[in-house]
Amino acid sequence: MHAYRSHTCAELNKEHVGQTVRLSGWVHRVRDHGGLLFIDLRDHYGITQVMADPDSPVFSELEKVRSEWCIRIDGNVMARDPSLVNPAIPTGEIEVFIRDLEVLGKAEELPLMVFGDQEYPEETRLKYRYLDLRREKLQTNMKLRSDVVASMRKRMWDKGFREFQTPIITASSPEGARDFLVPSRLHPGKFYALPQAPQQFKQLIMVSGYDKYFQIAPCFRDEDPRADRSPTDFYQLDMEMSFVTQQDVFDTISPVIAGVFEEFGGGKKVDDPAEWPQISYRDAALWYGTDKPDLRNPIKMQVVSEHFRGSGFAIFAKLLEQEGTEIRAIPAPKGGSRKFCDRMNKFAQSEGLPGMGYIFWREGENGMEAAGPLAKNIGPERTEAIRQQLGLGVGDAAFFLGGKPKAFEKVAGKARTVIGDELGLTEQDRFAFAWIVDFPIYEQDEETGEIDFEHNPFSMPQGGMEALNGDPLQVKGYQYDLACNGYELVSGAIRNHKPEIMLKAFELAGYGEEEVKSRFGALYQAFHYGAPPHGGCAAGVDRIVMLLAEEANIREVMMFPMNQRAEDLMMAAPSEPQNEQLRELSLRVIPQE
Amino acid sequence: MHAYRSHTCAELNKEHVGQTVRLSGWVHRVRDHGGLLFIDLRDHYGITQVMADPDSPVFSELEKVRSEWCIRIDGNVMARDPSLVNPAIPTGEIEVFIRDLEVLGKAEELPLMVFGDQEYPEETRLKYRYLDLRREKLQTNMKLRSDVVASMRKRMWDKGFREFQTPIITASSPEGARDFLVPSRLHPGKFYALPQAPQQFKQLIMVSGYDKYFQIAPCFRDEDPRADRSPTDFYQLDMEMSFVTQQDVFDTISPVIAGVFEEFGGGKKVDDPAEWPQISYRDAALWYGTDKPDLRNPIKMQVVSEHFRGSGFAIFAKLLEQEGTEIRAIPAPKGGSRKFCDRMNKFAQSEGLPGMGYIFWREGENGMEAAGPLAKNIGPERTEAIRQQLGLGVGDAAFFLGGKPKAFEKVAGKARTVIGDELGLTEQDRFAFAWIVDFPIYEQDEETGEIDFEHNPFSMPQGGMEALNGDPLQVKGYQYDLACNGYELVSGAIRNHKPEIMLKAFELAGYGEEEVKSRFGALYQAFHYGAPPHGGCAAGVDRIVMLLAEEANIREVMMFPMNQRAEDLMMAAPSEPQNEQLRELSLRVIPQE
Repeated sequence: MHAYRSHTCAELNKEHVGQTVRLSGWVHRVRDHGGLLFIDLRDHYGITQVMADPDSPVFSELEKVRSEWCIRIDGNVMARDPSLVNPAIPTGEIEVFIRDLEVLGKAEELPLMVFGDQEYPEETRLKYRYLDLRREKLQTNMKLRSDVVASMRKRMWDKGFREFQTPIITASSPEGARDFLVPSRLHPGKFYALPQAPQQFKQLIMVSGYDKYFQIAPCFRDEDPRADRSPTDFYQLDMEMSFVTQQDVFDTISPVIAGVFEEFGGGKKVDDPAEWPQISYRDAALWYGTDKPDLRNPIKMQVVSEHFRGSGFAIFAKLLEQEGTEIRAIPAPKGGSRKFCDRMNKFAQSEGLPGMGYIFWREGENGMEAAGPLAKNIGPERTEAIRQQLGLGVGDAAFFLGGKPKAFEKVAGKARTVIGDELGLTEQDRFAFAWIVDFPIYEQDEETGEIDFEHNPFSMPQGGMEALNGDPLQVKGYQYDLACNGYELVSGAIRNHKPEIMLKAFELAGYGEEEVKSRFGALYQAFHYGAPPHGGCAAGVDRIVMLLAEEANIREVMMFPMNQRAEDLMMAAPSEPQNEQLRELSLRVIPQE
Repeated sequence: MHAYRSHTCAELNKEHVGQTVRLSGWVHRVRDHGGLLFIDLRDHYGITQVMADPDSPVFSELEKVRSEWCIRIDGNVMARDPSLVNPAIPTGEIEVFIRDLEVLGKAEELPLMVFGDQEYPEETRLKYRYLDLRREKLQTNMKLRSDVVASMRKRMWDKGFREFQTPIITASSPEGARDFLVPSRLHPGKFYALPQAPQQFKQLIMVSGYDKYFQIAPCFRDEDPRADRSPTDFYQLDMEMSFVTQQDVFDTISPVIAGVFEEFGGGKKVDDPAEWPQISYRDAALWYGTDKPDLRNPIKMQVVSEHFRGSGFAIFAKLLEQEGTEIRAIPAPKGGSRKFCDRMNKFAQSEGLPGMGYIFWREGENGMEAAGPLAKNIGPERTEAIRQQLGLGVGDAAFFLGGKPKAFEKVAGKARTVIGDELGLTEQDRFAFAWIVDFPIYEQDEETGEIDFEHNPFSMPQGGMEALNGDPLQVKGYQYDLACNGYELVSGAIRNHKPEIMLKAFELAGYGEEEVKSRFGALYQAFHYGAPPHGGCAAGVDRIVMLLAEEANIREVMMFPMNQRAEDLMMAAPSEPQNEQLRELSLRVIPQE
């Protein structure tokens, strides 16, 4: 017989009754029923009930066994009495009578119980991560993460992509976040950087003629703490293709993402990737108040400025006299009660706005009537025109926000989310996807008036060089995001692979040729040696797993996460280096005041 | 039609004749046959001959096209004249008459030609890696590497392993090499380290109950330059299993490795993993002079001390009077000529030994006779006894080395290799594997007499605590390597998972409990909470790909390697940081004198 096990703890059933077996695992739970000892023995695969009475040669040793001891037992498989069968587990029909015992690893008093649902402070969970990881939720999440990543790989291979590893110890990458630096011992005073993303490398791989690249790529950013991201690193499904248009990238990655959600989404509805809408950045802002809309929520905002221009609602009427202002409506089907409208108004105030005007429609004495102060101010005709535009009726409401869109769009988007949630309009068991396209290449700083890149500087402007010779703020890029349920899952672009267009694009953002060369030297130079048109995207692995696992905290889907202060409490990192190490690196730490 | 291509450059054949197609790729080669222009158009998949004469509307533009320009052409597929068919490529039956041309990316004068076999200095190749990577050899090697890694993953999945990513920004790991450090911004004066291997993490994953782990894991070591390794990082197929014996690990990983060599070994013979010998560390040293023997070479050394004890060959006879000395023979079938023997003797001298005694057997006047000075000194009886022990005959030779084995074993091993190669004994088209087992846990410093770990300190000593209470130098570990064709491909162990045995093992090597806690705190602590017996190994991915690609330089199997001074010439890393970056990290660079 094998030294440790003849079966796993998930394998035994009625067919094994009468056999002598060997099992190894952890003591999940011990129950002492007066002379009868029951142990739930747990391994990675399942739980088997093992038991003994004083007839067992090892009964007295068994009495010493405690939770989370790792043990090996030999015993006989016995059928359980039908009244004691546990149909919830595959081994529920049997139990094993223990005839021999070996303690493989004792456990001291536990700082964290594996059995049960007790909650522990995150400090404890992270310090004793190896115990936390034994608990069912993390076992499930870690398996899920591993399976999701494996599935991504298989799907990319099936599409003819090869995975290539790009350097981790490399040069500073210009993604805009803060680099982690790595001092060089051989070159005193010089530093490597950990890559914020393999952006430049994957583009260089395209210039090198590899056609289709992907990588489950670690990305490193020295970020300030935030609950839903790791302070040090995260993983992307990174991909790039040559000789493609934006639509080619969509056609390639959409079924991969949809497939993963279908495979691991627990039966929730996954929108057919052939039908994922493509929504312009501008429309997304207008309709949903965000570039990562949650399309499970059916609410779509509309511009209703005309109904308020010169109306009796002086605030909006005056507002509209200023250039660049708009009034937008958030339709709220089934929201037609004063109580709900007042609550939403308060929500807007809590977000820093003076409030949200509203109208709601109810059954009055003479049929449908519009209620709320706004309706009175603008009169029945305008009110009715608004109702018709929004397609609302009795029992529905609409909320109104006005001003310069940039100033209220974000709150409008939040209000849309809250309204959808509170009114139960937002579907729960669905993954709803949309490609957001036509991002502007540039944005203007409101205070300085300076023009800078809106996203990253690598995207090809739509219209190429000609477009760059016009108004920069009108230039859209072949740049896109994939939104799912209110999160950005994927981001990508068709790249600017022409050195002269690249230079011009940077010039508009205030960067000269020297700066381009020093920041993106390899890529800029490579583009002078026959660069193919190329594009791709990167999907957030952690975010996808979080959505699938229904977790809000990234630390629930990582094996060994840092805490929010970027400390690994289990490994005690970071730590003070030895003087010898600093000397070898020609570094001195500046004392803190 | 698609914006860039209707087909790849490997797809068109006779069946496409008459079709209008669109191709994109690089100008591999241009030939101007007086009014007829031929271009070999290359993409990732293959090469298609495209051509034009002055009837083409784009002929004059085509004349400007140069090597490595990236272009898109439209044209008609035409059958080649039978005399011009090129059977060496899949598209050899056709050519495409160019009707339209778009230059996608021009190329300046090339620092490195993609077409042809010209050799370039490594500096040039690394600086313009994106051009070097277009060349056929690197395309082949990179595809091979990617396919090998993919195959490893599939094989591990098939065996029930899950891949889990372990942290890259973490604490110093105690593998014995030099860490790369990463300064922490949030914790001034403290540093993270990049992992030398995921050793502690994979063991913690076992303690966490995950049963079977693997990872294609990047490992980081700040190494001094050496030709066959990267100065910064390398990749391992890292795996670990719980509740296993050494044989279980062999049974799991052997077919994975054998499978990869069969799949990618180009038809070379791969030894059946069920028949890979298990050779003790001690026997390997004796028989092959190394712990990574090349078993394609049939030569096996033997101890022949008894034949020289008290013999007329005074040097050996005297040597044998000292304790711990031995005489070993290297049989050299077919090496029986004075010329060859003298050459081997010189080889030994070039390795710093006084020489290698030898005997060779030839056809003399009275049948077989032994020649060489040694034979004369020890006389015919001893000579004959040696011949019989070694199983040699006419035309064969034997070489002799003596002293304390540690002093000559390495040279003996080298001599065995040279002899095998020179005599053509070493099979060429074979991958020969052997598990080397029973490594000693400790070694003794010859000068100080101090005892330290021979390999790594994580291995379980054979015999457990009892063995540690005896002579440390006699203690063997459950520790093993897999050798293939003279290289160490895999290294692993059954781990020491019992804290009391771990403490004792460290104590023998002179480390107290406090040191164990500070160096391996997480692991040591975790072992107090129910640790399962576990073990595993790590296989060198780069080395495996090098063997399969028949490359001696690791830079031929990495996409973007550093040079030997740990510089990335393409990305210009490492580089000087900005002052602001150093300030944020509370670091100052010590000026070099």
